[in-house]
Amino acid sequence: MTISVGFIGLGNMGNPMALNVLKQGYALTVFDMNPNAIKNVVAAGAKGASSAADVLANADVVFTSLPGSPEVEPFYLAAGGAIEKAKAGAVLIDLSSVLPATPRKIEAAAKARGLKFLEAPVSGGVTGARAATLAVMTGGDAAVLEQVRPLLDAIGKNIYHVGPAGAANTIKAINNMMSTVNACAMMEGFAVGLKAGLDLKTMADIVKASSGNSNALARVDRALIPRDFEPGFKVALMNKDLETFHTIAKEVHVPVSFSNMAQHYQQSALAAGLGEKDTSVIFTLIEQRAALAGKKA
Amino acid sequence: MTISVGFIGLGNMGNPMALNVLKQGYALTVFDMNPNAIKNVVAAGAKGASSAADVLANADVVFTSLPGSPEVEPFYLAAGGAIEKAKAGAVLIDLSSVLPATPRKIEAAAKARGLKFLEAPVSGGVTGARAATLAVMTGGDAAVLEQVRPLLDAIGKNIYHVGPAGAANTIKAINNMMSTVNACAMMEGFAVGLKAGLDLKTMADIVKASSGNSNALARVDRALIPRDFEPGFKVALMNKDLETFHTIAKEVHVPVSFSNMAQHYQQSALAAGLGEKDTSVIFTLIEQRAALAGKKA
Amino acid sequence: MTISVGFIGLGNMGNPMALNVLKQGYALTVFDMNPNAIKNVVAAGAKGASSAADVLANADVVFTSLPGSPEVEPFYLAAGGAIEKAKAGAVLIDLSSVLPATPRKIEAAAKARGLKFLEAPVSGGVTGARAATLAVMTGGDAAVLEQVRPLLDAIGKNIYHVGPAGAANTIKAINNMMSTVNACAMMEGFAVGLKAGLDLKTMADIVKASSGNSNALARVDRALIPRDFEPGFKVALMNKDLETFHTIAKEVHVPVSFSNMAQHYQQSALAAGLGEKDTSVIFTLIEQRAALAGKKA
Amino acid sequence: MTISVGFIGLGNMGNPMALNVLKQGYALTVFDMNPNAIKNVVAAGAKGASSAADVLANADVVFTSLPGSPEVEPFYLAAGGAIEKAKAGAVLIDLSSVLPATPRKIEAAAKARGLKFLEAPVSGGVTGARAATLAVMTGGDAAVLEQVRPLLDAIGKNIYHVGPAGAANTIKAINNMMSTVNACAMMEGFAVGLKAGLDLKTMADIVKASSGNSNALARVDRALIPRDFEPGFKVALMNKDLETFHTIAKEVHVPVSFSNMAQHYQQSALAAGLGEKDTSVIFTLIEQRAALAGKKA
Repeated sequence: MTISVGFIGLGNMGNPMALNVLKQGYALTVFDMNPNAIKNVVAAGAKGASSAADVLANADVVFTSLPGSPEVEPFYLAAGGAIEKAKAGAVLIDLSSVLPATPRKIEAAAKARGLKFLEAPVSGGVTGARAATLAVMTGGDAAVLEQVRPLLDAIGKNIYHVGPAGAANTIKAINNMMSTVNACAMMEGFAVGLKAGLDLKTMADIVKASSGNSNALARVDRALIPRDFEPGFKVALMNKDLETFHTIAKEVHVPVSFSNMAQHYQQSALAAGLGEKDTSVIFTLIEQRAALAGKKA
Repeated sequence: MTISVGFIGLGNMGNPMALNVLKQGYALTVFDMNPNAIKNVVAAGAKGASSAADVLANADVVFTSLPGSPEVEPFYLAAGGAIEKAKAGAVLIDLSSVLPATPRKIEAAAKARGLKFLEAPVSGGVTGARAATLAVMTGGDAAVLEQVRPLLDAIGKNIYHVGPAGAANTIKAINNMMSTVNACAMMEGFAVGLKAGLDLKTMADIVKASSGNSNALARVDRALIPRDFEPGFKVALMNKDLETFHTIAKEVHVPVSFSNMAQHYQQSALAAGLGEKDTSVIFTLIEQRAALAGKKA
Repeated sequence: MTISVGFIGLGNMGNPMALNVLKQGYALTVFDMNPNAIKNVVAAGAKGASSAADVLANADVVFTSLPGSPEVEPFYLAAGGAIEKAKAGAVLIDLSSVLPATPRKIEAAAKARGLKFLEAPVSGGVTGARAATLAVMTGGDAAVLEQVRPLLDAIGKNIYHVGPAGAANTIKAINNMMSTVNACAMMEGFAVGLKAGLDLKTMADIVKASSGNSNALARVDRALIPRDFEPGFKVALMNKDLETFHTIAKEVHVPVSFSNMAQHYQQSALAAGLGEKDTSVIFTLIEQRAALAGKKA
Repeated sequence: MTISVGFIGLGNMGNPMALNVLKQGYALTVFDMNPNAIKNVVAAGAKGASSAADVLANADVVFTSLPGSPEVEPFYLAAGGAIEKAKAGAVLIDLSSVLPATPRKIEAAAKARGLKFLEAPVSGGVTGARAATLAVMTGGDAAVLEQVRPLLDAIGKNIYHVGPAGAANTIKAINNMMSTVNACAMMEGFAVGLKAGLDLKTMADIVKASSGNSNALARVDRALIPRDFEPGFKVALMNKDLETFHTIAKEVHVPVSFSNMAQHYQQSALAAGLGEKDTSVIFTLIEQRAALAGKKA
């Protein structure tokens, strides 16, 4: 393979994704604001760049993995940003979770300069990033997806083409909304059961085999019973994703309900200083409101 | 096997359950207020009784499958009711979905007369009743469950002992709450996606492979895409189960949130005359509120 | 005046109402399960009866003031109850706050025996009861109201004929729902303002002069600023009234929203053991959820 | 009086406010993007300017009345904006309803150039603007308020100093949240009463005299009974104000509830194309959800 690949933003998610690209034999140049973040990838054979511009100047395909819209928009769109600095004909792929408006603006700017752009938010967490089993949701031209599909296969096992730019971040926000509503409703339900004298493990076993089952049930063994609220998926991050969902819902004027209550809980967790804990920590807030003794279940 | 089994209430659920008991070779006597309801079971070899008292007089084990607490309480507890009329030493098993207070009252009355009682609400619908794959949640003395376990194995494949009388109907209400909240939140989420221009089938495929997955997703192919809102699980029935959940939550003072909004939708469906439709019909109400064209997705 | 008046149930509300009837010069016989409850009224000139039946046997008009439907229904409708024992041609007036179904049943039973019945729940609290300034909402035949209007004028200053039996308790539940939703929303709003650094008294002054004003604002000076959460109107009582509102809403299938959240707060207060406090105590729960320092405002 | 006053933005609110300033004898220069908007004020004696810069160059005090943050921020802060163009030592007063962050940014920029700035959102609608009875909420330095108080007295009858920059728009959003929650809860309550057979006018009369009273009750006579849903206060505007309330609540992490449901209704009204109607039009949505015949009450 002779294409040159760049990767900018090697945080918790970006770092293992970059490693997985490297493992497939691509020539990889990497950059992160924090020099320590790239060390293991350079040690594994990537070239470390001294700036994002340095990566952009030479790469045929550039991945970015940044915190959110406030970082992604200026990175691409500001004077001297990625759209200006990218190599002629390059494909730019943003793996970040952002507002759908962000990829729409970037794609327009990219096309105006003859570049290609794909939004590609991922799902599956740090575990999925390491195992290269992420779901990758893409939005933009299908032809661009086909061009870079081998690269995406390096980081995830399910690659979806959702629709035009913005569609991928839309479905990601919708999925995460369902995930957190299912979890919060489960925790309210089990709080009722616990206060009525039922056993948490028994309840979870029954629901897992019944119509109420959802991926949220995995939290019972992982977090609720051992009372282990380390992330996982942080409250602050879920709050951001719910905010994205609400922004989309308001843009298209779809009145929603459940997600507001889920964000109510995220806000209460943020108020309690629990923003860096796993979203399952909301169970402790529900216990307080119900005056359920917070004893080990 | 020489024990004599009775079955009272052969409606949509009771009828196939009675047939499955018969198939295991038990001597079965059946009764329903509607004489037509027992015909197929009598044709298959059961004895038809002329009254509930007739069944109760002779059976060692009696199943009841009735609509809800307003029918179950007088059936067992009224003067001349089942507790008075049951054969000495009989085991009475109520398969109905009722308020948890109902089995508590019945068990106390049964014990006072030297009878045994088990609450045993089931999950899995008419399909599960026919296939003998129901989940059976039991509440009461574990020894009573062991005594009748072979009979319960005839109707379901997962038999749970949840706790004392009332516990089984508690977890059933909790499960059904989660089931309907997951479904309503999913429908709100997909309404947002549809109005934002995404494809319903694509969205469902992605969520099925992601953190937001739940049993509710099966409704997309079964009901939402074909716009088929025949039950399945009726709005009126889910409204009753949510009412049970709320009754329990208020008894133990656990403040809840999501289930109220789910019942808001059930109430709106009842107002619209949709009580006999599948709960998925709530999607049409969400479409109206969102001014989403109700076109075939 | 020669009509004989009876009064049964001389609790916090009934006692001052009975006194006000007496002050208008009526011959009054009183009874309460708790003998101490009638002492001051007897001292003021009423005749103390030894039983409710004793009152019913002789009075032309009988008032009842009891906790709720679970007490009122058997009192009137049980074998040997008030409908059976009342003097021929008597007018029975129930001042209690009950489910609308209760006066409907009582009125039917009363008419069947040739008696007259009026539901007459009151609003204005103990203060209004003492000052004879209660609002009296009546449901039933308008002619019955006209017959007893002078007696009702003794206890309240605004007498309304709302509609047939049940209508008065319906509007009472609706009013109380609005009262508590307005209060809870105000407390959430002011919690936001307080955490944003605004002064509570200043905020209240501005809202009082603006579109957001409601009777709830009186709680700021009376309860929130002095942090005085003695009743007033108890959490447990408001929870009962919201339950009545929800029972009515579900009977007629009107999907509601705000009242559920208000009851969520009442339930959380009950869980925290605050049922006997004034409903304003919910502010302390909102402070906790917001991690607002619970310092004197 | 020799101070020179400027007024920029003479829309529905700005126009009558500018007239009231003129009536007090101030020398007034006005500008609006729409030349027709200033005609009546010029006819009354104001000087029409050809641009905002023209106003800013000469005025000692400049009022702005613009739609919201997206217009106000660039007007003041952009290169060549009001902060750059204002006369040395001028006082700038923004009467617009904006996010609290907006006046904070403007005040900082104004102080850096030696200018004075006051946020001064108003309450009372077009009627109050014409009658010069607006409530004027100010945020910023109290000394600046004292300097311009005579000018503010020209437009409103209650002038409040709420706190530092941002505080005035915070209380305005809080007040408007209470206003719309009170109204929506009232409409849900009366929908229950109507479907239970009660009379709307009777219900409103009783609540007005009871604990549930609020300014929202005025909508019954003005909008609900005549079914007159012309503004008044537009749905789109209330949606914007609720968005401001939610932005503030999330900044300070106070979990809220009622306002979400109110915005759910505003969103449903926007979806139905009712954004330019009075917020009372939500009653028609509640009627639909309840299958209440939309007949003249």
